[in-house]
Amino acid sequence: MSDTLTFIEANLGRFREELYDFLRIPSISAKSEFDAETARSAQWLAERMAAAGLEVEVLPTEGHPVVLGEWRGAGPDAPTVLIYGHYDVQPPEPLQLWTSPPFEPTERDGRIYARGSADDKGQLYMHVKALEAHLATSGSLPVNVVVLAEGEEEIGSPNLVPFVDANVERLACDVVVISDTGMFAEGLPSLLFSLRGLAYFEIHVHGARSDLHSGEFGGALKNPGNVLSQIIASLHDDQGRIAIPGFYDDVLEWDTTTREQIAALPHSDEEFRESLELGALAGEQGFGTLERLWIRPTCDVNGLLCGYTEEGAKTVLPNHAMAKVSFRLVPQQSDANVKELLEAHLREVTPAGVTVELKELHGGRPWKASVEGPYFQAAAEALEEAFGTKPVPMGGGGSIPIVVEFEERLDAPALLVGFSLPGCNLHAPDEWLSVENFEKGIGSLAILYEKLGATGG
Amino acid sequence: MSDTLTFIEANLGRFREELYDFLRIPSISAKSEFDAETARSAQWLAERMAAAGLEVEVLPTEGHPVVLGEWRGAGPDAPTVLIYGHYDVQPPEPLQLWTSPPFEPTERDGRIYARGSADDKGQLYMHVKALEAHLATSGSLPVNVVVLAEGEEEIGSPNLVPFVDANVERLACDVVVISDTGMFAEGLPSLLFSLRGLAYFEIHVHGARSDLHSGEFGGALKNPGNVLSQIIASLHDDQGRIAIPGFYDDVLEWDTTTREQIAALPHSDEEFRESLELGALAGEQGFGTLERLWIRPTCDVNGLLCGYTEEGAKTVLPNHAMAKVSFRLVPQQSDANVKELLEAHLREVTPAGVTVELKELHGGRPWKASVEGPYFQAAAEALEEAFGTKPVPMGGGGSIPIVVEFEERLDAPALLVGFSLPGCNLHAPDEWLSVENFEKGIGSLAILYEKLGATGG
Repeated sequence: MSDTLTFIEANLGRFREELYDFLRIPSISAKSEFDAETARSAQWLAERMAAAGLEVEVLPTEGHPVVLGEWRGAGPDAPTVLIYGHYDVQPPEPLQLWTSPPFEPTERDGRIYARGSADDKGQLYMHVKALEAHLATSGSLPVNVVVLAEGEEEIGSPNLVPFVDANVERLACDVVVISDTGMFAEGLPSLLFSLRGLAYFEIHVHGARSDLHSGEFGGALKNPGNVLSQIIASLHDDQGRIAIPGFYDDVLEWDTTTREQIAALPHSDEEFRESLELGALAGEQGFGTLERLWIRPTCDVNGLLCGYTEEGAKTVLPNHAMAKVSFRLVPQQSDANVKELLEAHLREVTPAGVTVELKELHGGRPWKASVEGPYFQAAAEALEEAFGTKPVPMGGGGSIPIVVEFEERLDAPALLVGFSLPGCNLHAPDEWLSVENFEKGIGSLAILYEKLGATGG
Repeated sequence: MSDTLTFIEANLGRFREELYDFLRIPSISAKSEFDAETARSAQWLAERMAAAGLEVEVLPTEGHPVVLGEWRGAGPDAPTVLIYGHYDVQPPEPLQLWTSPPFEPTERDGRIYARGSADDKGQLYMHVKALEAHLATSGSLPVNVVVLAEGEEEIGSPNLVPFVDANVERLACDVVVISDTGMFAEGLPSLLFSLRGLAYFEIHVHGARSDLHSGEFGGALKNPGNVLSQIIASLHDDQGRIAIPGFYDDVLEWDTTTREQIAALPHSDEEFRESLELGALAGEQGFGTLERLWIRPTCDVNGLLCGYTEEGAKTVLPNHAMAKVSFRLVPQQSDANVKELLEAHLREVTPAGVTVELKELHGGRPWKASVEGPYFQAAAEALEEAFGTKPVPMGGGGSIPIVVEFEERLDAPALLVGFSLPGCNLHAPDEWLSVENFEKGIGSLAILYEKLGATGG
């Protein structure tokens, strides 16, 4: 094992240069104009995985391809680990808010700035390098490995479940390891006990046959922009709760132990507020900030577009207004149920004189970890060895919809071991990954494979 | 007079070709990138006015220039008529909804389609051609004339009042004639008894230091998109009334005669609703459609922009949301007072955790006509002669802020005699002007000058 860690240390410079090449490819899965780049990103990753010593295939789906890497030399008695990550990234807009261009990786103050550095190319590539380190130093791995890298995580993984279903035997494993989340704080490694799900919609309000003059027509018909605003306002009550009837029926009330663990974490509302440069925090009454982020659902506007939005004053009465609105869901909600509840609510609140259209862009189920057992224990020990401190349990506010699907379909628990840091601007301008965590992350994962091998499968 | 009308008929083809040239110039005053075109439009108009026989100057302002044409040969005993119009146009967006390009005038089914055809180049040019017809046939005009064409009407005429103030003696007149409004129906000429004013704002809601990941941060802070929606929703109550405290304090309760005249007009809610392809009309309870359009104030969203609005699902928690919101005002409201009331309301409804910024883009006062007297009578007779039917009184839903300013500064009543038709898409794609009204309008105005001359000033 010490050879492996020495190899990692000796090759870190090269690992980073390779990561920069990966980050330079704008694999924006949400935008079809970048399809060729997304494909190039898959190809690049496949080549690097093969160079690390895996058997690699780039497998087509109805969308972006899956890159599958395998190494099965540990034998039938060793456990099989499925490593999942994604090579696609979020759109980088608004571009003008990036200090350095999103697809030109730039190091400043110990951070690698680039779209995808933290989410998820940087973390996925840590696994590739940890595997390479084992194979380069000992010619083998302590576990059998299947690496599954998809290119559609940022658009809701529409083709991954069919892919898993079609390849259940090939993907069969004892444990799933995913590094697409963060640590609670710098120097404080973390293991996830939950993830929120997602239900992402577009709400369209349609009015008259065309845009109209707001003077000639204003006052005599419903304005889709005003109606859309009223609809969005109707989604919350004045306690910060979501006001869609039935919305909380399936929301899990967490156990006291978990809520106590959350309360024990080194969190300061004041520091959190200042880090965001906000005058005040806000949220659902009766819950603390970390609970609001991890174990309570949300309803957020992600986008609004209506009428004239350029320079100056155009006196138009628009005939269409659009909102992107998404809900973060907690165990045991489902996006399908939320869609039904939202549809019913929209029917209730839509006034005569407009029509409302609801489009689901994507959804994903929330997840609750199995925190007992040898795999979770192995991960805790690996993180402690690499970082020199015991990992803390934390929730994940974001969504990795595939986690639940893997667990159910492959009958294996998932371990979520992530290395991004608070404030790393996921999905925002100036996304970054800590150079130190890139290094310690690779070490942690190399140790984790060793410890998972020692569980005996 | 019959010579003049014969001249008009004989030259209509040329008049239309000239108008098309005028319409081809994209004089979009709201967009600085079109400043050169707006200047070219002023120059073109000045040349055509000079060719008609006026003394013309293009006079600079701090914004777009004023084109001033004068003919003072009727002598001191004849009345002086100030003709006002504007050569600037609204932005043409959304371009994809135009059947033919906005700046390529195209005739279909007796209509001239182009941005500015109705508002206001087409109508302003009717005056130029009516003046030319008199001067070409008799070598003189029945009245002294000052034509004032500005290039900033669509952005609220910011430099016109200073221009008027600096030129009060030169602009001194007995009556102001403006053709920038419409007829109640095809074949039914109309005289305006009121115009609504305007108070146009941008509301900006600012949140955290940057856009954030809606999963990592959603639930623990106010989302500017949700807050903006709540603010907009707070502007109306469930009776369709504007819910800003004090907003109705200055609203004129109109006399019974005017409300009876409105009720007597040949209006069908059902036809109006169908013409807009709406499932239902809407508005302030207790008032009919025409009252809602003419004598009651409004609050309309003109634009919304927030977060991610392109293809796909970006899970961003935006840090900024913007709305363009405008109010149509009625006598005796003022935009300055509405701004104060709105500011107070925003302070009241803005929650902790965001900051709200209010920018006034432009404002204009409402207007109420002097419907008695010889000039109004002259206009009624001129319209009846040209169209063969008595004109009806109507209100104007739109705003021409300068009307009140002219009346006060020049101590002269304004006559609003307009020729656009319902459904002509003012400020919207596929704006059009009826070919028939272009012709009859020129005739009406030629007769109007004659009748104004006969009032003896």
